Amino acid sequence: MDATFRAMLEHGYNDLSIADIADEFEMSKSSLYYHYDSKDDLLVSFLSFASDRFEEDVLTAPTGDPMTDLEHVVEKLLPLELDEERRAIQTVMSELRSQAVTNAAFREQFTDIDDLLVAHLRVVVERGIEDGSFREVDSTRVAEHVVATLNGARVARATTNRTGAPAAVRVSLASYLDTVLRGRR
Amino acid sequence: MDATFRAMLEHGYNDLSIADIADEFEMSKSSLYYHYDSKDDLLVSFLSFASDRFEEDVLTAPTGDPMTDLEHVVEKLLPLELDEERRAIQTVMSELRSQAVTNAAFREQFTDIDDLLVAHLRVVVERGIEDGSFREVDSTRVAEHVVATLNGARVARATTNRTGAPAAVRVSLASYLDTVLRGRR
Repeated sequence: MDATFRAMLEHGYNDLSIADIADEFEMSKSSLYYHYDSKDDLLVSFLSFASDRFEEDVLTAPTGDPMTDLEHVVEKLLPLELDEERRAIQTVMSELRSQAVTNAAFREQFTDIDDLLVAHLRVVVERGIEDGSFREVDSTRVAEHVVATLNGARVARATTNRTGAPAAVRVSLASYLDTVLRGRR
Repeated sequence: MDATFRAMLEHGYNDLSIADIADEFEMSKSSLYYHYDSKDDLLVSFLSFASDRFEEDVLTAPTGDPMTDLEHVVEKLLPLELDEERRAIQTVMSELRSQAVTNAAFREQFTDIDDLLVAHLRVVVERGIEDGSFREVDSTRVAEHVVATLNGARVARATTNRTGAPAAVRVSLASYLDTVLRGRR
């Protein structure tokens, strides 16, 4: 998976071949060819791996405070500063997501990733409603709104030079959550 | 531009060649080769053309009611039902946007498109503040939020099977605008 990530980063999707991935692979190259028929086959496995990692890294650590848990997800998905590693991950994931426009297997992977994210946010919102810290909102609708807004701001970062957009969205999203979930203005 | 659109739709970005575009072109093929050095060169012109069309089709028709004007943009960018033509446009634009991750000339075009959209929404929100129908909000922040949310929902439609997401976002966005701009809950 590490070799696949490095090869994607170096070559980009269009120019990537399974041989490029094998070149980055430190173990038996033949086992790579044995297990995977094509680069797309390998990249689907990579996305499934990335989805598990995403679940472990981002969708965890309930702190007991639902608003803190929501802020944790926002900070992980839309940090104000992107370090080199995060920028690399974002570049690779943006390129792969774009393939999902026309590739059904990729599309299923991104469906899973967004489903996981929406389900996690919904549970956090429902926890907040139960413990009385949030108003009685439609948790699915709020979760879908947050995911769409985060994904849109990530697209702006990946595909435009609109450098101020992520910070503006961070402020508007914090205010949205405060207003919708706690009734503040 | 029409030939470029049809060729993109038929071949997709990866497999597209300038010869494919020439094949769709009803006028002199040599003039096409004379004016454009590469498929990317032609596609940048296509994006600039698409941006003008977008401005004419979506960012127009002030009705005198700012909320109606906002709803017009939302309906144009995130219709509940996609007809075949709109789906085709979305597929082509999603594929081209994904190239902006690594292509600076494409990136500039998508920066322009999103800048146009944010500027338009900002003006509509400011008009609403002036005529007293909206509260005194930060118009840039609201415009950035709406654009991020719409772009995120469009990404969901283009790259996942999450068929319920656009409708959920339409409802949440209407409620966001009502709450933020008119102070309703």
